[in-house]
Amino acid sequence: MLIDAPANPPANPPVPQPAFILVRPQMGENIGAAARAMLNFGLTHMRMVDPRDGWPNPRAVAMASGAAGRVLDHAGVFATLPEAVADCAYVFATTARGRDLTKPVMTPERAMEHARALSAAGQKVAVLFGPERAGLENEDVARANAIISVPVNPEFPSLNLAQAVLLCAYEWGRQGTAAAPEVLALAGTELATAIEVEKLGDHFEERLEAAGFFFPESKAEGMKLNLRNLWSRMPLTRADVQTLHGMLRQILRRRDG
Amino acid sequence: MLIDAPANPPANPPVPQPAFILVRPQMGENIGAAARAMLNFGLTHMRMVDPRDGWPNPRAVAMASGAAGRVLDHAGVFATLPEAVADCAYVFATTARGRDLTKPVMTPERAMEHARALSAAGQKVAVLFGPERAGLENEDVARANAIISVPVNPEFPSLNLAQAVLLCAYEWGRQGTAAAPEVLALAGTELATAIEVEKLGDHFEERLEAAGFFFPESKAEGMKLNLRNLWSRMPLTRADVQTLHGMLRQILRRRDG
Repeated sequence: MLIDAPANPPANPPVPQPAFILVRPQMGENIGAAARAMLNFGLTHMRMVDPRDGWPNPRAVAMASGAAGRVLDHAGVFATLPEAVADCAYVFATTARGRDLTKPVMTPERAMEHARALSAAGQKVAVLFGPERAGLENEDVARANAIISVPVNPEFPSLNLAQAVLLCAYEWGRQGTAAAPEVLALAGTELATAIEVEKLGDHFEERLEAAGFFFPESKAEGMKLNLRNLWSRMPLTRADVQTLHGMLRQILRRRDG
Repeated sequence: MLIDAPANPPANPPVPQPAFILVRPQMGENIGAAARAMLNFGLTHMRMVDPRDGWPNPRAVAMASGAAGRVLDHAGVFATLPEAVADCAYVFATTARGRDLTKPVMTPERAMEHARALSAAGQKVAVLFGPERAGLENEDVARANAIISVPVNPEFPSLNLAQAVLLCAYEWGRQGTAAAPEVLALAGTELATAIEVEKLGDHFEERLEAAGFFFPESKAEGMKLNLRNLWSRMPLTRADVQTLHGMLRQILRRRDG
């Protein structure tokens, strides 16, 4: 322990924490290191999607030590990403491949500011971290509302999993000790949760499939991914999701009637 | 490499870099990891005081890989701290034991802000990092003008050497990048124009009208308005608009076919 000293006690009333979600993590040691990095800044809500070596993982526990072990004890483990983010209203994906995706790309600073505002407004936030070697797949990023990209030296970008977690946790903590971020104008509206957006995507995909939209076959997967990205990129409210379901249903009712 | 993407190019003219000084570092691996952490944010001026295992250290080089190896190649190695900081006008010490010393104690954020101001004014700045196990001695801190203390969770302060370096380097870099363009980095994509969104709205409204969606009559106007608001609130690209037109057309083609 080199540095500690809580220079500033939290200034604002605590807001609900984001969930940090490790997607298909490979090494137990890195899971443990991620738990430590989170807890350094008071974050305790970890989730995992399909950890390579199963769960629980003794190497993760050995690495995490003491209080960080309790972060692991309480971690939620899910088989798929859609399950892991089902209850989340806003999902950030940490990735290097932000540039070719049409989603907001934010620095950790901006992202955690946004996360704090959303959390303060009662919206559940998640941050995704990809596997050590390859990072998040396009399939994963398609489930996210925005991308977090650390502005590193383009000639030497070499952050590992625990470092990426550390920087995001640091930003969350840093902003909690400073003046309040401006609040988003979410007055009276509720953002759709990820599971609601996922089901909306399913509904459209299913009906469009039946209508022969995904043609030719060779392009079908890419078209489906684009469509998932389209929905997740939109700041959809619950009411929007209901409207879009209703539109599709009504058109089909007329068609089939 | 999990995260990269230089979202923001440096906005200000570059100011001279601070020297990051590892004081009596123990493990070569940690020296290499510190070099990597620095270079992630463009910092290349490393110094060392009396590294335990001598210098050069093959383990440090193995850990540092590529460009970070060059940071080590150029690192200055000194027998004592006073020699290492001899040319520096302002020295920060990272330490957990700030509270009993009568020196300014700063967060990394505040410290790097100060460091930038000093550097811009032509003052040479150094940041000291202590040995892995015990951190800086009081003797070392006595050479510093101010203390950097990371506001970590007091119940779990567990930053290691490379993490402390990473957070200070991150803060240096963060403050050097442009005032966060929270811009949607819509790389290579074009947002739809208002007229395109208007026509998309027309298309849906027309087809939904034909499908009997706007029912009952008394609510039709309000429903249409909501739908217009839904489209205009979404950050639609040109490609999105084409996709949405295409979806609607394909579903109707099947219906009419």
